[in-house]
Amino acid sequence: MRISKDHIHDSSMNELSVHKENFDFLSNNLSKKNVDVKALIKKLSDFQVAIPSWALGAGGTRFGRFSFYGEPSSLEQKLEDVGVLHALTQTAGAVSLHIPWDVPSDYKAIKNMADELDIKFDAVNSNTFQDQKNAKESYKYGSLSNTSVAVREQAVAHNLDVIKIGNQLGSKSLTVWLADGSSFPGQNNFQTALSNTEDSLKKIYKQLPDDWKLLIEYKPYEPNFYSTVIQDWGTSFMLANACGEKAYSLVDLGHHLPNSNIEQIVSVLMLKGKLGGFHFNDSKYGDDDLTVGSIKPYALFLIFNELVYGIQNNPQNPDLAWMIDASHNIKDPLEDLIQSLEAIQEAYAKALLIDQYELRNAQLNNDVVKCQELLQDAFRTDVRPLLESARLQSGGALSPIKSYRSLDIRNELIKERGKHNIASGL
Amino acid sequence: MRISKDHIHDSSMNELSVHKENFDFLSNNLSKKNVDVKALIKKLSDFQVAIPSWALGAGGTRFGRFSFYGEPSSLEQKLEDVGVLHALTQTAGAVSLHIPWDVPSDYKAIKNMADELDIKFDAVNSNTFQDQKNAKESYKYGSLSNTSVAVREQAVAHNLDVIKIGNQLGSKSLTVWLADGSSFPGQNNFQTALSNTEDSLKKIYKQLPDDWKLLIEYKPYEPNFYSTVIQDWGTSFMLANACGEKAYSLVDLGHHLPNSNIEQIVSVLMLKGKLGGFHFNDSKYGDDDLTVGSIKPYALFLIFNELVYGIQNNPQNPDLAWMIDASHNIKDPLEDLIQSLEAIQEAYAKALLIDQYELRNAQLNNDVVKCQELLQDAFRTDVRPLLESARLQSGGALSPIKSYRSLDIRNELIKERGKHNIASGL
Amino acid sequence: MRISKDHIHDSSMNELSVHKENFDFLSNNLSKKNVDVKALIKKLSDFQVAIPSWALGAGGTRFGRFSFYGEPSSLEQKLEDVGVLHALTQTAGAVSLHIPWDVPSDYKAIKNMADELDIKFDAVNSNTFQDQKNAKESYKYGSLSNTSVAVREQAVAHNLDVIKIGNQLGSKSLTVWLADGSSFPGQNNFQTALSNTEDSLKKIYKQLPDDWKLLIEYKPYEPNFYSTVIQDWGTSFMLANACGEKAYSLVDLGHHLPNSNIEQIVSVLMLKGKLGGFHFNDSKYGDDDLTVGSIKPYALFLIFNELVYGIQNNPQNPDLAWMIDASHNIKDPLEDLIQSLEAIQEAYAKALLIDQYELRNAQLNNDVVKCQELLQDAFRTDVRPLLESARLQSGGALSPIKSYRSLDIRNELIKERGKHNIASGL
Amino acid sequence: MRISKDHIHDSSMNELSVHKENFDFLSNNLSKKNVDVKALIKKLSDFQVAIPSWALGAGGTRFGRFSFYGEPSSLEQKLEDVGVLHALTQTAGAVSLHIPWDVPSDYKAIKNMADELDIKFDAVNSNTFQDQKNAKESYKYGSLSNTSVAVREQAVAHNLDVIKIGNQLGSKSLTVWLADGSSFPGQNNFQTALSNTEDSLKKIYKQLPDDWKLLIEYKPYEPNFYSTVIQDWGTSFMLANACGEKAYSLVDLGHHLPNSNIEQIVSVLMLKGKLGGFHFNDSKYGDDDLTVGSIKPYALFLIFNELVYGIQNNPQNPDLAWMIDASHNIKDPLEDLIQSLEAIQEAYAKALLIDQYELRNAQLNNDVVKCQELLQDAFRTDVRPLLESARLQSGGALSPIKSYRSLDIRNELIKERGKHNIASGL
Repeated sequence: MRISKDHIHDSSMNELSVHKENFDFLSNNLSKKNVDVKALIKKLSDFQVAIPSWALGAGGTRFGRFSFYGEPSSLEQKLEDVGVLHALTQTAGAVSLHIPWDVPSDYKAIKNMADELDIKFDAVNSNTFQDQKNAKESYKYGSLSNTSVAVREQAVAHNLDVIKIGNQLGSKSLTVWLADGSSFPGQNNFQTALSNTEDSLKKIYKQLPDDWKLLIEYKPYEPNFYSTVIQDWGTSFMLANACGEKAYSLVDLGHHLPNSNIEQIVSVLMLKGKLGGFHFNDSKYGDDDLTVGSIKPYALFLIFNELVYGIQNNPQNPDLAWMIDASHNIKDPLEDLIQSLEAIQEAYAKALLIDQYELRNAQLNNDVVKCQELLQDAFRTDVRPLLESARLQSGGALSPIKSYRSLDIRNELIKERGKHNIASGL
Repeated sequence: MRISKDHIHDSSMNELSVHKENFDFLSNNLSKKNVDVKALIKKLSDFQVAIPSWALGAGGTRFGRFSFYGEPSSLEQKLEDVGVLHALTQTAGAVSLHIPWDVPSDYKAIKNMADELDIKFDAVNSNTFQDQKNAKESYKYGSLSNTSVAVREQAVAHNLDVIKIGNQLGSKSLTVWLADGSSFPGQNNFQTALSNTEDSLKKIYKQLPDDWKLLIEYKPYEPNFYSTVIQDWGTSFMLANACGEKAYSLVDLGHHLPNSNIEQIVSVLMLKGKLGGFHFNDSKYGDDDLTVGSIKPYALFLIFNELVYGIQNNPQNPDLAWMIDASHNIKDPLEDLIQSLEAIQEAYAKALLIDQYELRNAQLNNDVVKCQELLQDAFRTDVRPLLESARLQSGGALSPIKSYRSLDIRNELIKERGKHNIASGL
Repeated sequence: MRISKDHIHDSSMNELSVHKENFDFLSNNLSKKNVDVKALIKKLSDFQVAIPSWALGAGGTRFGRFSFYGEPSSLEQKLEDVGVLHALTQTAGAVSLHIPWDVPSDYKAIKNMADELDIKFDAVNSNTFQDQKNAKESYKYGSLSNTSVAVREQAVAHNLDVIKIGNQLGSKSLTVWLADGSSFPGQNNFQTALSNTEDSLKKIYKQLPDDWKLLIEYKPYEPNFYSTVIQDWGTSFMLANACGEKAYSLVDLGHHLPNSNIEQIVSVLMLKGKLGGFHFNDSKYGDDDLTVGSIKPYALFLIFNELVYGIQNNPQNPDLAWMIDASHNIKDPLEDLIQSLEAIQEAYAKALLIDQYELRNAQLNNDVVKCQELLQDAFRTDVRPLLESARLQSGGALSPIKSYRSLDIRNELIKERGKHNIASGL
Repeated sequence: MRISKDHIHDSSMNELSVHKENFDFLSNNLSKKNVDVKALIKKLSDFQVAIPSWALGAGGTRFGRFSFYGEPSSLEQKLEDVGVLHALTQTAGAVSLHIPWDVPSDYKAIKNMADELDIKFDAVNSNTFQDQKNAKESYKYGSLSNTSVAVREQAVAHNLDVIKIGNQLGSKSLTVWLADGSSFPGQNNFQTALSNTEDSLKKIYKQLPDDWKLLIEYKPYEPNFYSTVIQDWGTSFMLANACGEKAYSLVDLGHHLPNSNIEQIVSVLMLKGKLGGFHFNDSKYGDDDLTVGSIKPYALFLIFNELVYGIQNNPQNPDLAWMIDASHNIKDPLEDLIQSLEAIQEAYAKALLIDQYELRNAQLNNDVVKCQELLQDAFRTDVRPLLESARLQSGGALSPIKSYRSLDIRNELIKERGKHNIASGL
């Protein structure tokens, strides 16, 4: 299934004049405040977020899964879905593959298809949290941290395979999310587990192509419920330093203890030149993997404030690998991802509106009230016309959700694929 | 210190034309969506929030307190401060007194002063969490829940005194925040403590004037760090039911465990006709008592969504007693309160914009994506022109913070009162 | 697979003399403190905990499941497993069935088998959180709370079926765990969802046999990640009151927000005569479903302190339905359950050692230090000889884990059932 | 007030024979399991914990303070109190001073007094979270992190003063607890605040005597409620590395987000040779500063498991600075400290009982059940006779609390000091 630019354009026609009015009014207002609207829209257009291949089907919980109709069941169909998202939003120009779920059978064909859809292959993801069919060793008690040499070697080898696969597709980074840990006090020797992990990561790092990055995730708990080997940014940062300059920390918004100040973590990692990637989602309780911006949009804005600041002031960091990592348990996955993309762009646009010069002055004067006013002024601004404009200029939809529905895309997918396809993944 | 309407008006002159443009544009847009802008502004104007008498000076933590210049040191000066707030914002038309810190010496004079400032006396607050000078019994181990009859009687008597004082001022409700609890396992017999509390509350309730309400707060911890007698809404609700139909629960936003869904609590209390009052503040960790809307503005909006719904659909509840309960440790208390008032009005206005009819339909169709879109559409709207208009119509300032500063009010207060006044309170 | 008492006895022989020494020494010490050791052991022996039929196989997380060899795949095999547990520990004399996973094909045969194994049928559990094959309506958007009448009727009918099945087996209570809720703000109308739930529960309650209890669980989140209809004890308590005197709250230790004071909830429910059942497990982060007592044994002891107090002082409550509700992701499920049973008995024994008379006096005198000493004195006592004695007297094993291993039970089960059986359940 | 060894001895006489029986029985049992009881008791005797000078009076909360009679009001009286604690428990052989509250007027006299009482001067603590009378600069907006050079210089100078004072008393380490942070988003530039802090710490470190250590605390929140500059172990660790090899992290048990796995942090810091100090207390909600072991004794045991492991296996760490950091709001501070000391010794003794060899084997075999059994076996052992023996051998009391009461020490202190003394501090 492919959507033509014409169809998208047509689907937006009705509301174009309203958009134009709103945009002109906002643009005019912002210009009076010396905002370079054109430059801002350019930044929005340039900001591309990868879609993970495992998020295009319905997700589930340990209590079960309610499937969704028309799910993609092959890598080709997954790419098609990302293509739909990108065509509508013009901000989903990348896909992030999960191995072994998405090993291409024909690399050239897959690359061509992605090229046609204007989709890049971003970070590749390894999987050592599940046992693969016919695998010799089990990850039940850990992978890169396992006390058994054989298990660690299998896990390292798998990561090296993932690099090879990614390399053939043009990926430039490997994301390691390590589920290793323990569910009971005493189960793990923390020091052994950490040392083993460091050794394993170094072995992977050693084989990393020169223009690649190694992105190390952290997470406090789940699927282990007492300890996780890489439990927090401090551990991830320490391991990245131990590996070398191409190794970085990756922040997933859902991987923190209650009440964590994530924006400060982002800021410190950028100061130290060690922020490499970012997984977007939202949550209220744990790693809930909800739609980005659906629960705490102000926190997302504060995080983007640090990202914008870091991008402008911390050249010591690489280009970041942006990805959405959410689970779609009760919404149409594609609609859910559109809402996430919209929320990301909104937070980014608002963060770009913060008057950094005034903020710096207010901070120097300890004018706390003013600091808050400056942030809230940006956050309270309705930036939707800017997002619309960025999309329109690139050939996307004025309102992606509305176009998705008016173009009846889900039904088209069901027609093509049937109702009971099941996507591999979570 | 009093500010004249003329001064306020003059301080807003510069930005009036910009406001008018913004307001007309927004108003026009909203009208197209069938929003009755006039009625909405009327609701904003009618919404009045009480200022607690103890929040006009600098607050502190157990680690100390950095005082602020020009604090009010008498009840008269506190009223003056509320007067300033109300003059600027037109939404602070009430004060909530704390006894024994604010016992009037001349009731008539105080009432006249309040009348002149257009300020009502809202709920009165008792204090059984500190020992008063020369008190016979100590509250160290509890007050209404104490195992000692004498202590309980003293605490009940104090609450009855507070009612008497409030009655002379025109207050119509008594708020009981009970700090009672325990800091160590075994210290309290939970059942005894709860039964004693129920008995004590009933004794207070029995003396409550017919047109009064008894508002019962709950809080999970602090100043006790193992248990609190009235630890959650369930306990407060149970006690309110035990007392009778004039007893209600009071929700303080900071009095919940991490990750609580407060809006659901609000909704359930309203369904049952037992929501009586509301204390606004914001927090990231515990009962941080920060400026309203400074940390989680979307959560505040969701709470207002339930309040708006309840006000429209649940006539079983009384008019609610709204109050700000924040602590001003590092900001000018008056500026801090202005920011809180603004945040409350903003959340209220946005909640009023939610299309309840569409929302109900989307809920019935389990169109989760649409439900989210409807809430986000309202939240993303920049409602500041509506708030400005509501203030202007009532004689308030276009931008209260800017006027407060341009009118140099803090310096005027320092001139009148000196730098080292200390307000009674927290 | 059945274990004979002789085998169990033999497996304990080696350590009998050591046990006897330890027991005599402890018993002697306790007697000097006026503890009636014989009566205490009687209480331990009488305390029987139900094993849920779904916990006999390996559990998993949303990230996958590592299966365990020799899992039971039929109701008969599940009963056999409970039989093994009970034979060894003499405290697992009941099973709690989950419908539709455990519908008996031959009621009489199943009852006979249970009788032989000395196992009772405790509370039956309904399942409206998953769609059953060929079900007409889906629970994707809720069951008892659903906006659709047809879905609610299906869910009510299922619960009535469960009662019928339980009735044929001798069960006397129905446990309703309602997963209903929402994952996004706006998705649910809280008031509608609660009212629908209340109506549905009343319909079930109406058909409840006279000698049955309805046990209503609560849980703050998961599998829904924004709200749960029955989110806390207050809601459960309210619903139980609305249904009638045979309806009670059920406390699951893992179903609370971070830092909740669970023992106080237990105490208040018992005071009000509304505690009906209890699900044991342990957790560090959320509903982790870990082995009982493996993370916070002191909290478990404090909860038992309230249970013991309530059992002695609150005749308004029924006999409680005790059950373990844990998930066995990385341990042999049977060994895991043995550890849970041991931890429960330990906490119970220690709570029975608290000198309630002295505690009451210390509380009346506000001697907080003494209160703590009294609790800690009981907790610090090594009660294992008492547990051993209780087991031995009933024909159980001195050390169930050791006997389980020395009798090579898991291998026996694998021999009988094969490696790749999969138990229905979570 | 001084207590003679004779009085202490006499106060224990009554229970000596019971103790002897219990000790012999336990010692015999442990010996059979190859525990070297004598060596274990030696370790307990050698383990000395510092008492902070500010913890000898009643603590309070932001809601007030209930004072305690007979509080010490001078440094001499504080030393006396520590002397009492040490005489009774034989484990409080050090004091940790807070400057400027405890600046000696006569160093020689103070040192002599401490020598007589067998008390060492452990880490000294600076205070930049409160403004001192007549201070030129204010710490309202931060100290070592302040944007103002003058404030930072004052704060650095204060820390250098503290080192000088400590040096004259024989202290060998400086503990820096930095309250710096922000209460509102935008208030601080995180990167600037961190860089300033690093610079300031380096300036202090540069002047550190060669045989001193710099101990850097971390804390997520309070007294700032949005961010703390040194928010977690990762930040503290990074700063310690930036300063040099004499700089270490200090872990305070109350300074973590909900559900943190503190034992893992301890383990990792020890692996990296960067654990320098430890503050003991307990908590349920935040930094509650409750009696050690009163809420989560098993967590304390797990932490001691890592400490014992690290002391045995990680020579890269220095001798640790142990201190109790609790607040005594409702108990007699001396009794409260005795309970804390007892809980520390208990956890230490139990951790020493863990069979490390068996544990390592079980870990290598992924025998999770066995790992848990080994830890629980140690924890369930009643080690009180060992603690008693360690105390008796050093001339302490069999039961310090009982002796404290039978010797009527609080009344003696009141006689000497009067009721209404107030200790400086928190």
